[in-house]
Amino acid sequence: MDSWRTGIVDAGPSHIRVRGHDVLDLMQRASFTDLIFLLHHDRLPSPDERRLLDAILIGGADHGAGAPSCAAARLAASGNRASLSAAVAAGILTIGDEHGGAGSGCMQLIATGLGRVNAGASIDAVARALVSEARAAGARLPGFGHRVHSDIDPRVAVIFGLAEGSALAGNGVRMARALEGAVRDLIKPIPLNIDGALAAVLVDLGFPPPVGRLFFIISRAAGISAEVLEEHLREKPMRITIPVIYDGVAARNQE
Amino acid sequence: MDSWRTGIVDAGPSHIRVRGHDVLDLMQRASFTDLIFLLHHDRLPSPDERRLLDAILIGGADHGAGAPSCAAARLAASGNRASLSAAVAAGILTIGDEHGGAGSGCMQLIATGLGRVNAGASIDAVARALVSEARAAGARLPGFGHRVHSDIDPRVAVIFGLAEGSALAGNGVRMARALEGAVRDLIKPIPLNIDGALAAVLVDLGFPPPVGRLFFIISRAAGISAEVLEEHLREKPMRITIPVIYDGVAARNQE
Amino acid sequence: MDSWRTGIVDAGPSHIRVRGHDVLDLMQRASFTDLIFLLHHDRLPSPDERRLLDAILIGGADHGAGAPSCAAARLAASGNRASLSAAVAAGILTIGDEHGGAGSGCMQLIATGLGRVNAGASIDAVARALVSEARAAGARLPGFGHRVHSDIDPRVAVIFGLAEGSALAGNGVRMARALEGAVRDLIKPIPLNIDGALAAVLVDLGFPPPVGRLFFIISRAAGISAEVLEEHLREKPMRITIPVIYDGVAARNQE
Amino acid sequence: MDSWRTGIVDAGPSHIRVRGHDVLDLMQRASFTDLIFLLHHDRLPSPDERRLLDAILIGGADHGAGAPSCAAARLAASGNRASLSAAVAAGILTIGDEHGGAGSGCMQLIATGLGRVNAGASIDAVARALVSEARAAGARLPGFGHRVHSDIDPRVAVIFGLAEGSALAGNGVRMARALEGAVRDLIKPIPLNIDGALAAVLVDLGFPPPVGRLFFIISRAAGISAEVLEEHLREKPMRITIPVIYDGVAARNQE
Repeated sequence: MDSWRTGIVDAGPSHIRVRGHDVLDLMQRASFTDLIFLLHHDRLPSPDERRLLDAILIGGADHGAGAPSCAAARLAASGNRASLSAAVAAGILTIGDEHGGAGSGCMQLIATGLGRVNAGASIDAVARALVSEARAAGARLPGFGHRVHSDIDPRVAVIFGLAEGSALAGNGVRMARALEGAVRDLIKPIPLNIDGALAAVLVDLGFPPPVGRLFFIISRAAGISAEVLEEHLREKPMRITIPVIYDGVAARNQE
Repeated sequence: MDSWRTGIVDAGPSHIRVRGHDVLDLMQRASFTDLIFLLHHDRLPSPDERRLLDAILIGGADHGAGAPSCAAARLAASGNRASLSAAVAAGILTIGDEHGGAGSGCMQLIATGLGRVNAGASIDAVARALVSEARAAGARLPGFGHRVHSDIDPRVAVIFGLAEGSALAGNGVRMARALEGAVRDLIKPIPLNIDGALAAVLVDLGFPPPVGRLFFIISRAAGISAEVLEEHLREKPMRITIPVIYDGVAARNQE
Repeated sequence: MDSWRTGIVDAGPSHIRVRGHDVLDLMQRASFTDLIFLLHHDRLPSPDERRLLDAILIGGADHGAGAPSCAAARLAASGNRASLSAAVAAGILTIGDEHGGAGSGCMQLIATGLGRVNAGASIDAVARALVSEARAAGARLPGFGHRVHSDIDPRVAVIFGLAEGSALAGNGVRMARALEGAVRDLIKPIPLNIDGALAAVLVDLGFPPPVGRLFFIISRAAGISAEVLEEHLREKPMRITIPVIYDGVAARNQE
Repeated sequence: MDSWRTGIVDAGPSHIRVRGHDVLDLMQRASFTDLIFLLHHDRLPSPDERRLLDAILIGGADHGAGAPSCAAARLAASGNRASLSAAVAAGILTIGDEHGGAGSGCMQLIATGLGRVNAGASIDAVARALVSEARAAGARLPGFGHRVHSDIDPRVAVIFGLAEGSALAGNGVRMARALEGAVRDLIKPIPLNIDGALAAVLVDLGFPPPVGRLFFIISRAAGISAEVLEEHLREKPMRITIPVIYDGVAARNQE
């Protein structure tokens, strides 16, 4: 087998370096959030960038034990006590397009839009075109609307407040705002949700679209871990039962 | 990297062989149960052995959508529509010591007992010693009792009926029966459960203890798959909510 | 929480029934393959249908320890000895669009085509249209071509031989053959691969597209299980090392 | 179904609170490391505690793409492109007793020892007794020795330096040092490894034993995520092949 190439971690004989930075030095000076930024980027964050990433990671960590990610993890923790990693993994596996997944989709939408802006169009014109195209295709716009919050998710204001208060908001945030306006004009008022807000900011921080999903996974892993710990410390194994009603074909007489 | 060694599958240039058997030939003549036996053994089963393994694999496949394995898979299928394998994996991850895990533990117990029998002791004496030791250590005897069925699980009779009707029952089944008698005499009547029954039979079929867990995983994978399919075809994404009551520390005023 | 509905398994008080069939009865008379068919369908298979499903499940179970599914499972088995289910799940998680995933995609393609046939078009005309559309979109046709086998995968002939020899081949197989012809005429000769063959047959057996992926998962779970067992019985923990070359940014002097 | 209880996150109607703290407030003031501490504890950390947890989380995040956790994640990322969570989960599943698991085991050892100290024994006497017992049982002492580093892991000095420089080192660190001394006296010099160092510190920070494993999982999730991102952005699907040599039974003539 050929060796694998990697540009992230140099686990050479005497030192471990992450993108050129000595891990021993980072352990003494940096925060975990700095390291997360560095692992997915080519540099450490500025203090304002770190603040913003901390807010994103804190905002997604846990929304209660009933969220699919935490509920699945507790089910695994209840049946499979011998493996903490199995329970955390079961929780992570619920994350996808429908659960925590809109961030990547909205980053892709914004990135597509900014590509057209770089080719000469205005942000507002591109936003209107993107909304019209999605409407014509019957596609949902990722990053807009929410199942639960009928009005603005308060985390959105925090994220945008931090971005705009620190001059980190750039064309990503501008495109998200323009999309929100185009949705209001062309469809109906549907506010940006938390996935849309962090998508806008992560684009401005220079991350590619898959990072929207990956940062949510890292963030939620912390919350899942705490739920798994509580299930182990406080509950009996196999305590969870889900009531089910069978409504399929009737019993047959076997001949 | 050195090459990995394997004695199971020869994926050589012109043919694929499983333990020496041509896969193309097996595809035309054998059953999937034959292949499962062959993959974990060094030969194909006899018809009676195949019948017994079919019964074991059928008996464990699915006990309803509320079982932890199926519920976790449905949660993942509900949030992560893009990956069927993620949903099946989430279900499998609930399988462990507390859920579907007693089979391996009981196989280990029987194997330990048969080791002493081979060293000269009688099956009944070994069974009484094993029960006494477990009782002294306060340990649960894997393969005995059940959370739900207060009397004998009807699947146990089917498994033992097939084994004893076909002369496949050997010292594994004898040891399981002797353990059941010793439990009755030394503690109280606690019937063998389905995990204990299949453990006894799998020992007599020549499988090592981890196979008890692995065959349950293969069997349940089929049931999980069907639950995931139904969730996709019949239910909306993110339809599952679990009610949660917070009973932790009160809200604090942040200063 | 409301109860969940299910039409698959009735785990009622006294019996367990799968789509109306008594599990105790199935344990004595049916094969595991019968049960897999029943769990994903609304009836048991005929003998010819069972033969075909056995061939499909046998053909996909294991292609050697170096396949991604088996290699990932062995890595997990090597590091996480306490949980057999974690190792099997790690293997299953490698299955997706690029690994074992073309079956579902090809079933979707065939189903789309048969929808047009039902609306009045001929199979050949629909096949040519589908190939032209894929070509215009620059899309890969799922179920055609193979990374390794430059000529026909011998399993394809076995699957089609069984289907056509038993009168089970219907419009699914006809559409697959017509697509193969249209590919040859409009692009270049690219044979149907095993994913395409089983897709055609599964459509004719009445299964919806996700079943292509799910049956591969069930099938491969058996192979992964055997690889995990061998890793446990034969190899030391953490024996696997992968050689990696770092080619990222150079070491920095930290100030 | 009864509601589930939780003491971690209050996802009530108007606010989300983590152990009584408002998430919106935490997003603006706290670090992700603060939140991880809070989720697994009943309070926020002091600055010195945060520094120590940052060091622990940074030190475990990634040791190169060849580590089992990263290699399994890359295999899944290579075959299953549609699901980033599946790839991260596959990596996490390699974490267990043999890979990243010694931290929890060493925390349990230290906790057992401190229980005896609380009952009146001296730390040194307890340490000698624990080492003697492990030696008599032929058991490995979790947290001592290392597969690769023949001398002291430099991360150990960083962790202990931070703990001892900030007066956070307590009986956990004292017990670990005493165990190291007893190992040297009764067996041979085997240094504490990184798992042992973080175990000692996490005991002194007031965390229960499973947290050793869980914090490694959270930490490594960040590293796995970066490896998965690189695999997506830089490599072709299914590019990884592992060389395998079959050494099982010879091909058979099927009759």
